[in-house]
Amino acid sequence: MKKLRRSARLVDMTQHLLAQPHTLIPLTVFAEQYGAAKSSISEDLSIIKEAFESQGVGVLTTVAGAAGGVKFIPKVKTEDALDFMKELITHLGNPERLLPGGYLYMSDILGNPITMSKIGKLFASAFADKNVEVVMTVETKGIPLAYATALYLNVPVVIVRRDNKVTEGSVVSINYVSGSSKRIQTMSLARRALPEQSRVLIVDDFMKAGGTVRGMIDLLQEFRATVIGCGVLVETADVSERLVDEYVSLAKLQEVDIKGKQIEIELGSYFQK
Amino acid sequence: MKKLRRSARLVDMTQHLLAQPHTLIPLTVFAEQYGAAKSSISEDLSIIKEAFESQGVGVLTTVAGAAGGVKFIPKVKTEDALDFMKELITHLGNPERLLPGGYLYMSDILGNPITMSKIGKLFASAFADKNVEVVMTVETKGIPLAYATALYLNVPVVIVRRDNKVTEGSVVSINYVSGSSKRIQTMSLARRALPEQSRVLIVDDFMKAGGTVRGMIDLLQEFRATVIGCGVLVETADVSERLVDEYVSLAKLQEVDIKGKQIEIELGSYFQK
Repeated sequence: MKKLRRSARLVDMTQHLLAQPHTLIPLTVFAEQYGAAKSSISEDLSIIKEAFESQGVGVLTTVAGAAGGVKFIPKVKTEDALDFMKELITHLGNPERLLPGGYLYMSDILGNPITMSKIGKLFASAFADKNVEVVMTVETKGIPLAYATALYLNVPVVIVRRDNKVTEGSVVSINYVSGSSKRIQTMSLARRALPEQSRVLIVDDFMKAGGTVRGMIDLLQEFRATVIGCGVLVETADVSERLVDEYVSLAKLQEVDIKGKQIEIELGSYFQK
Repeated sequence: MKKLRRSARLVDMTQHLLAQPHTLIPLTVFAEQYGAAKSSISEDLSIIKEAFESQGVGVLTTVAGAAGGVKFIPKVKTEDALDFMKELITHLGNPERLLPGGYLYMSDILGNPITMSKIGKLFASAFADKNVEVVMTVETKGIPLAYATALYLNVPVVIVRRDNKVTEGSVVSINYVSGSSKRIQTMSLARRALPEQSRVLIVDDFMKAGGTVRGMIDLLQEFRATVIGCGVLVETADVSERLVDEYVSLAKLQEVDIKGKQIEIELGSYFQK
């Protein structure tokens, strides 16, 4: 145990809190680590709390009592979310992104880990109070978003496979109809990959008719899970029905004019709250 | 511009530096943001530098002169890396993880974003001085490791597909022989996904005979890329040749006795430096 000055303590506590979101840390842990009185740690935490809140990093919640402590909840300010998504939408609106079938080329955006991290923080903010236990996605493109979200919620990720060649013991498979292609497809998840009755947040990059998300919801029934919500980066305007109650999109593809090479993208349902 | 006290400044600068690894930030940016003199910012940075280095968060490098600034390089202390990997190896050594074909069930470990983040930081530390421009992996299981590594290196991720059904314009495909199954397989990457002559770090979760990594190296030749290294979480001891010069494994599966339900795992080449 090394006694640290307040300035060094602030740096180290900041780093520890950021690395352990949604985790209750007893004040005694910090007090022992830095050889400081609990009252000094409390003062440090109020400095960090104010800085985090004013800079839009997130919220520090203090729980009093013997089982108490401090918890960092990542939260994005609405104005920061707006600035970020407006810039991303400009970027996405480039007509060169148009792909056959009304899809958008997004691999460059999905390949940027800092962009993914920012989007993950948006989803984690939106579902911060929902006691998410697992983030689920289907391979391949939703995976980085799922991890980024799960890192801010501090919960595990479960990845559904698009085939049934899973070699991980007993497997649950379902067939589903991909809404846009109308073809029957398979998705699978190993039994041991998800505890029964988990509270699951579904995350994906793109939602057209919603068949893939519906497939995941059906699959989750086999695990007696509760789907607490769904977050997608881009939805298309032709989604006819809401698949889950807590449904959040960050952007909405309104119109695609393939011949005229025009795309129209708006802010998604995240910003309608 | 709001004038902040040193304590609030330290919290905010810590958070900014952590969020932008491997990025040169001019001191004037901080000075303007906080309405502080550059000399005060320099003092703040030396406090942060000392705290980061003593706690094993990473290194702060200062570049002097007009184009100068400060850069945060995530680096893991060897003792912390050892503690972490020894614990992970104990966890991995559970015989119930044995899967047909000499593979290990690792989905629970690969599904834990904080574990992935720690492993990504190990790889980012190992290749911190190599001017990595892109992290590459092949779907599916290596993806979280690739993102975690790329986030600490602050570079994009490129994901190679295991088929040639990529709908993203012109595609480069190669056939390769999977070392363990001896079957011919295909991997593909869209031309627009990777700029020519990039400096690429390959990351994967598991390497048996090394056919998949070799496939990626062959594919990268089509993009005139330089493979600066390769990081794998678990290699098996039967790898007959080193595929690249800068080759780093974190763990090595020495012996698998499927009948006797025994696994023997050692520390990987990362710890032989």
